[in-house]
Amino acid sequence: MKTEEIIEKMNQDEMESLFILKPENIAYVTGFKPSSTAVLIMKDEPLLFAAKLDMEAAQAQSCVPVEEFKSLEELKNKFKENLKGTMGIENSMTVGTYKKVCEDFKTAPNDIIERLRASKSKSEIIKIKEAIRIAEESFKKIDPSHFSGSEDELAAELEYEMRKAGSVQTPFETIVASGYRSSNPHGSSSYKRLENPLIIDWGAYYQNYASDITRSIIKNKEEEEILSILIDAQKEAIKVIKPGIKASHVDEVARSVIKEYGYGEYFLHSTGHGVGLEVHEKPSLSIKSDENLEKGMVVTVEPGIYLEGKFGLRVEDMILIKNRGKILTNLPRKSFFKD
Amino acid sequence: MKTEEIIEKMNQDEMESLFILKPENIAYVTGFKPSSTAVLIMKDEPLLFAAKLDMEAAQAQSCVPVEEFKSLEELKNKFKENLKGTMGIENSMTVGTYKKVCEDFKTAPNDIIERLRASKSKSEIIKIKEAIRIAEESFKKIDPSHFSGSEDELAAELEYEMRKAGSVQTPFETIVASGYRSSNPHGSSSYKRLENPLIIDWGAYYQNYASDITRSIIKNKEEEEILSILIDAQKEAIKVIKPGIKASHVDEVARSVIKEYGYGEYFLHSTGHGVGLEVHEKPSLSIKSDENLEKGMVVTVEPGIYLEGKFGLRVEDMILIKNRGKILTNLPRKSFFKD
Repeated sequence: MKTEEIIEKMNQDEMESLFILKPENIAYVTGFKPSSTAVLIMKDEPLLFAAKLDMEAAQAQSCVPVEEFKSLEELKNKFKENLKGTMGIENSMTVGTYKKVCEDFKTAPNDIIERLRASKSKSEIIKIKEAIRIAEESFKKIDPSHFSGSEDELAAELEYEMRKAGSVQTPFETIVASGYRSSNPHGSSSYKRLENPLIIDWGAYYQNYASDITRSIIKNKEEEEILSILIDAQKEAIKVIKPGIKASHVDEVARSVIKEYGYGEYFLHSTGHGVGLEVHEKPSLSIKSDENLEKGMVVTVEPGIYLEGKFGLRVEDMILIKNRGKILTNLPRKSFFKD
Repeated sequence: MKTEEIIEKMNQDEMESLFILKPENIAYVTGFKPSSTAVLIMKDEPLLFAAKLDMEAAQAQSCVPVEEFKSLEELKNKFKENLKGTMGIENSMTVGTYKKVCEDFKTAPNDIIERLRASKSKSEIIKIKEAIRIAEESFKKIDPSHFSGSEDELAAELEYEMRKAGSVQTPFETIVASGYRSSNPHGSSSYKRLENPLIIDWGAYYQNYASDITRSIIKNKEEEEILSILIDAQKEAIKVIKPGIKASHVDEVARSVIKEYGYGEYFLHSTGHGVGLEVHEKPSLSIKSDENLEKGMVVTVEPGIYLEGKFGLRVEDMILIKNRGKILTNLPRKSFFKD
């Protein structure tokens, strides 16, 4: 079914074949996520080339026939006779690979698979929900609002719970940043003892699908004031979400609320991004985005305010786009330190 | 110092500038590993463009001046006036970025930084040794030879210990594969209860530097026989390691020992790879490699035998190349299940 949809898009763009290397894209089409070099050739008859060491797993999991991958040079020679028209290549292909394999062909860089991946199927949404459930249950288990210890220790406990619950690796470096460190939006954890406020930005994987959530734990009035602004900005942004609107509009709405309160210049990143096989994928909810929202997309909405030298806060939830935005995450947005 | 070395290589290759995007390469040159898009321009005066949300950390950590990154388009316009000669770009640059920024310039894809990264400085070796220490101490703490539980549980405990010891994320998906599952060289852990034999392939990060080790835990004569062959192959391969020899020769030696015992066709991958800021980097110890070994390189030597439908085993150590190969890893290579 996916295969047909892809071939249709290829025909629209007058591509005779599509050359896919990105592991997440191969996982999307075949159901098998390679652990080593693999190449999926989409034509009327799709064919996956998997490394020798992946063959056993590929044959068990791929819904597309599998042959052994030997080298890019060998593949190139094979193609020389078979591929005549325009070969679609991924925007994410490296220049090195392009020079080695594709330069002699008529190629068209594209993001067909990434665009298809943006709208999730029912079975994909089930996996994303499970990745959210693992992340949220683990968070509740360790209860950061009365955790005593270092940022590193909190991150270790949180990841341990997610791992035991079936999440392999984390989709990104877990962020645990407290006190003055919280003003760095991507502050990985340190040996520092937890202070207020505390930002935790974490996620789990379930069957290759990611989750991505942020909660801030606060202590005083000043922090509560900032957090309330963020919750307000997030609520307003989520309200406008529906199929057909510009992705950039969601960013505009969140940003304008924060600006109204006078903190516009302290919102240092875009409002959100798609989540699926990758933790950052289409669409981008940013001013620069030219995408439109579609049914089935799963996006984060994550306004933040970062006061360098003082502290920073962020709140991030995951939204499924149906007729309106449906919030998939469940944890309360405002929590105070208990001590 | 690194900057001078890079400029020298650029001059040799007649490049006027070098355009660096890969986070590990930026970390190598500047000391700062970006968490979002960043571009390092190497010219007489190197300059780092970091995303707004990375600015605070970049300014604190980078040894190269930092400006704010706005967009690739803006950078391109800036360059148009300043960059006249050949612009070096990374082999790992994506075709998408190339089309957006570099197509109008005279470019030369290259791997200057990756080649420099292959030979480690003293301070890099200290970090790699610490990443090994964290991985080995954590392994000893959980003692897999009398661990009872599932593969997932063992992986969770091992990663938890490494995390508490300061390792942020794992450099690759921890492999815990037991019983018949061990014949898949990259078998991630599952809910399956541990059986014999058991392959564990794991690593830690310390200050952005990785470690990568494999141990197999065995039970019976048949498994011991295979493991002894691997230890023999590994020993012979390490013996020939010295500066100046071909990297492919190490692979040949390991492979020929395994072949002698009649298991040649069951060694499904190359013999090893460099380890540093990335867990797989130059040099590649494979038949296809055209690299030579140099002083300061740190490589794995990891022969394996995989009998599909039965079981598989692998042993992997990390070697620093001095006048000879110096083994950096310390765990015993042959361990039996205790029960």
